Amino acid sequence: MKFEVTILGTNAAIPAYERYLSAQIVNVHDRIYMVDCGEGTQFQLNKYDIRRSRIHQIFISHLHGDHIYGLPGIITSYSLLGREKPLDIFAPKGLEEWINLTLKHSYAYLTFKVRFHTFDCDQSTLVFENESVEVWTIPLKHRIPTCGFLFKEKQQSRRIIPEQIVAHQIPVTAIKKIKQEGADFVTANGKVIPNDLLTLPAPVPRAYAYCSDTAYTESIIPIIQETDLLYHEATYLSLHEDQTLISLHSTAREAAKIAKLANVKQLLIGHFSSRYRDIDALREEAATIFPNTLLAKEGLVLEV
Amino acid sequence: MKFEVTILGTNAAIPAYERYLSAQIVNVHDRIYMVDCGEGTQFQLNKYDIRRSRIHQIFISHLHGDHIYGLPGIITSYSLLGREKPLDIFAPKGLEEWINLTLKHSYAYLTFKVRFHTFDCDQSTLVFENESVEVWTIPLKHRIPTCGFLFKEKQQSRRIIPEQIVAHQIPVTAIKKIKQEGADFVTANGKVIPNDLLTLPAPVPRAYAYCSDTAYTESIIPIIQETDLLYHEATYLSLHEDQTLISLHSTAREAAKIAKLANVKQLLIGHFSSRYRDIDALREEAATIFPNTLLAKEGLVLEV
Repeated sequence: MKFEVTILGTNAAIPAYERYLSAQIVNVHDRIYMVDCGEGTQFQLNKYDIRRSRIHQIFISHLHGDHIYGLPGIITSYSLLGREKPLDIFAPKGLEEWINLTLKHSYAYLTFKVRFHTFDCDQSTLVFENESVEVWTIPLKHRIPTCGFLFKEKQQSRRIIPEQIVAHQIPVTAIKKIKQEGADFVTANGKVIPNDLLTLPAPVPRAYAYCSDTAYTESIIPIIQETDLLYHEATYLSLHEDQTLISLHSTAREAAKIAKLANVKQLLIGHFSSRYRDIDALREEAATIFPNTLLAKEGLVLEV
Repeated sequence: MKFEVTILGTNAAIPAYERYLSAQIVNVHDRIYMVDCGEGTQFQLNKYDIRRSRIHQIFISHLHGDHIYGLPGIITSYSLLGREKPLDIFAPKGLEEWINLTLKHSYAYLTFKVRFHTFDCDQSTLVFENESVEVWTIPLKHRIPTCGFLFKEKQQSRRIIPEQIVAHQIPVTAIKKIKQEGADFVTANGKVIPNDLLTLPAPVPRAYAYCSDTAYTESIIPIIQETDLLYHEATYLSLHEDQTLISLHSTAREAAKIAKLANVKQLLIGHFSSRYRDIDALREEAATIFPNTLLAKEGLVLEV
């Protein structure tokens, strides 16, 4: 089952060097979710052929412009295209008021309902779930209320072995119990076929953690522990560490330190400062501490 | 002296087929002005190497999102880059409130002053002038208060003939009077050299009219009469004329009719509906009525 992340924007604060502003698409079992929505995100959806009509949930980490200024455009475009399905937006306090004021001032009347779900950033809470995924907030340390998001794939059922269906002439009606409840199968002549001959173990559930924007904080480690993929902001090189004290961002080294302490499988760094035209040095700095580090890049699709 | 228009976005309502949203740069004598600012405009400034620090005036035609959603990004980027010079924004009522609310909700504190200049759209008024240009509003016919803008180059002084300076040993101190006041020159031995031997006539002042968004309305003709370049929206083909009744936009044929009635020199059409992937048919339709019609295109630079 698919679980992948598509990067739409990687730059901090302002666009530069063809790097866009923060936005990602997370695909869990072929349902797609948007995370953050900087200006220009709808252009990136077009560019990377992501069908916007498939998006029903948008998760907003915080209300700095480089993470939200793309929302009015996306929302009004939906309306101009005649969207009817509701859109759920999960965000810290204040977003609902801003979106409503923006729609009012720009004379926009929507064809669909936007449902706002406000969370506070004091503790990790479950903000969304369906049959495939749970989305938890990750309280971060930034200048304004900010949360990352943990996408936790739900435990799937055991996988049936197709050859065994044929061999034992298992009817379709019996399959659900075998897969989901671990039931054995009794053949027409009373022979019991034990479940572990009919099925393979369920795959281990995967998790993706999105942590932007944040200063270095070990408080997130219990939440993101052992995740398969961690996106952590790495706005600066250690050389410019003084900047992180004012802006409450992280260096590449700090992102890597978090990845190492949390024992994640892979680290993806992003949210690069415009002071760096060439961002390879950020990856190199992180890799000295956590070798399995990748650079986020517009259009990158990464399996979790 | 330079007088040219750079097109940054040409699509109506939503971005499509790599066409951006309404925004233009008008350069008059090497000062640059922005007209409208759809989402993504700051990306286009980067793409076409337009130094944003040179922009001090932004003219906004109306408050529909596809003409203003790029403003918060531009304004906050200025601040992040440490801008100090004030920025003047000319717009119909409502913009100031929206920008201020947006800055507040996104926790943005500016390093410079934004000065708002509100105009109403009942009559053509002079909203800005300096030594090279006057900018007048052009009341348009749209669903909400909307004005186009007329950039009128000011009458320049006569142009001095360099060879005559040498021939008559004219001192630098005398040149201003000769150029700007049409003075004759009296040589050291009392000979009077008449001004028309020293100078060439001043160039005829040029004018650029920007008319988007609008239904067909002949009320604009007295204002845009004889302009060198008219940008007129042409959202639809006549085939889809019914759409213009609801949306108060124009067809390509209507844009051309206005250009013809106003006897302009050249027509530039833009603000294309997303229903047209290929926009050549719009130009062809307009050209049957007004042959000197061009299609607006991202990155196009046109001399007025």
